[in-house]
Amino acid sequence: MKSEKIGVAIVGYGNIGRYALEAIKASPDCELRGVVRRNPNDVPEELRSYSVVASLEQLSNVDVALLASPTRLVEQAARKALELGISTVDSFDIHGEIVSLRRSLDEVAKKTGRVAITAAGWDPGSDSVVRILMQAMVPQGITYTNFGPGMSMGHSVAAKSIPGVKDALSMTIPLGTSVHRRIVYVELEEGYDPDQVSASIKSDPYFVHDETHVIAVKCVADLKDVGHGVVMSRKGVSGCTHNQMLDFSMRINNPALTSQILVACARAATRLSPGCYTLPEIAPIDLLPGDREEWISKLV
Amino acid sequence: MKSEKIGVAIVGYGNIGRYALEAIKASPDCELRGVVRRNPNDVPEELRSYSVVASLEQLSNVDVALLASPTRLVEQAARKALELGISTVDSFDIHGEIVSLRRSLDEVAKKTGRVAITAAGWDPGSDSVVRILMQAMVPQGITYTNFGPGMSMGHSVAAKSIPGVKDALSMTIPLGTSVHRRIVYVELEEGYDPDQVSASIKSDPYFVHDETHVIAVKCVADLKDVGHGVVMSRKGVSGCTHNQMLDFSMRINNPALTSQILVACARAATRLSPGCYTLPEIAPIDLLPGDREEWISKLV
Repeated sequence: MKSEKIGVAIVGYGNIGRYALEAIKASPDCELRGVVRRNPNDVPEELRSYSVVASLEQLSNVDVALLASPTRLVEQAARKALELGISTVDSFDIHGEIVSLRRSLDEVAKKTGRVAITAAGWDPGSDSVVRILMQAMVPQGITYTNFGPGMSMGHSVAAKSIPGVKDALSMTIPLGTSVHRRIVYVELEEGYDPDQVSASIKSDPYFVHDETHVIAVKCVADLKDVGHGVVMSRKGVSGCTHNQMLDFSMRINNPALTSQILVACARAATRLSPGCYTLPEIAPIDLLPGDREEWISKLV
Repeated sequence: MKSEKIGVAIVGYGNIGRYALEAIKASPDCELRGVVRRNPNDVPEELRSYSVVASLEQLSNVDVALLASPTRLVEQAARKALELGISTVDSFDIHGEIVSLRRSLDEVAKKTGRVAITAAGWDPGSDSVVRILMQAMVPQGITYTNFGPGMSMGHSVAAKSIPGVKDALSMTIPLGTSVHRRIVYVELEEGYDPDQVSASIKSDPYFVHDETHVIAVKCVADLKDVGHGVVMSRKGVSGCTHNQMLDFSMRINNPALTSQILVACARAATRLSPGCYTLPEIAPIDLLPGDREEWISKLV
């Protein structure tokens, strides 16, 4: 184990950034070297003792940058950090674009001799590790991933962008076998027809394939809760033996888990060869602090 | 991906060996190069088209040997294979001795430039991966591992070694929070007192710490079933957020799953640097056949 702590920076200080601060403080081997945010003069109480800056190059001794920025800004932020010689961890969450982001970051990371860990949340992220492990244990069969009940960030943002919607909360309700119901709570702007807004939401690409209910409420903020969950089930064949049944489920605070995984990956980033990795490409033991043999004797 | 298949040998042809044959045949990238057993003249129907030999060096083109031999013979068999330049996978299952076995095999493997994967079953094995992942997601808290209901091989053998016991089956019954009940079905030899045998079993080190019931039956063979299962639960803290709840459970055919994991590890062995590894030290994606990017786009 390195005697010196891993120097971590948080880039972006929204929900994930705040929880990342807590996870870094709770980690025995990590130390916050500063926070990068658009407005570095906006320094909340809990950041008073840290450097808050507008750009990553203003911080020193940073080994790994946790990119707690919106998914769409991840690639740009990661490339910039890697070019500064800083490894990165992000929670990019658009499943269909992970392969191409990984290729792009892999090239920069190898060129600069650093590590990028991408799609490091819980789905994509720890759920992906479980799906891959289940696939190896039971190579033939079907895996169902059932999300919720919990708030979907992506769907809430999509609903909020519909004309007439002042605020929105889209809840994901698992109906089993990877089928989900969406319940969208909306706060309407004055003068908009609820039925019209409901129809617009239901025809939006984010919602058009799912059973969607739209409910107008006075105050969306009163309903918000960051709890979430998942149930993943695989039933299938090992060798030529059928009916092998595997299940993974969790009930969690969403940003707290995401941030904890980001910090575990910051640690792993210091142990990997240069390149870009998704979570299932990392030996799980590299996510843990301290001595490998100790964990083997305790948990293997 | 290598265009040539991975050459696999099975060493030991008991329960695990038989299921390993099925798993190898079901794997697109593996090919059985032969079976090593004590009596090579004992060739059951399903092995007629393969080489059955008394010693590993009699086989050719073997990349990885699956050691389906009893746990106590694993170290010797693994050292021998590694010295022949053949990588190994074993399902050594004595938790307290994994660290020292790993050290011993690591040394030989590095010297011969081969890979040894040890403790590669489901517990130790895939359960260990899940425990380590849960530890990374929720660093503070308690994990409970609840086995069964299912037959414990170790406990059955221990019961069978008690004087007066002709055959025995020890069932592990989960009582929750890692506490287990043992129900031991015994077939008695003539002239032995059931109460006396029951007392001997209950005072054996294998049983003395658990609630143990001994039931005399006419025929133990009639009760045998290789189904097994586990429920692992972790509740704890991510960052400073409490009440994070994770669960993994499965209901499986025990030797079929163990053998499938052995074969997945044979594949991983061809992709790792020389040395000895336990399952959580391997990137889960290396357990899967074929192209990495394809799995990422499908399962991450």
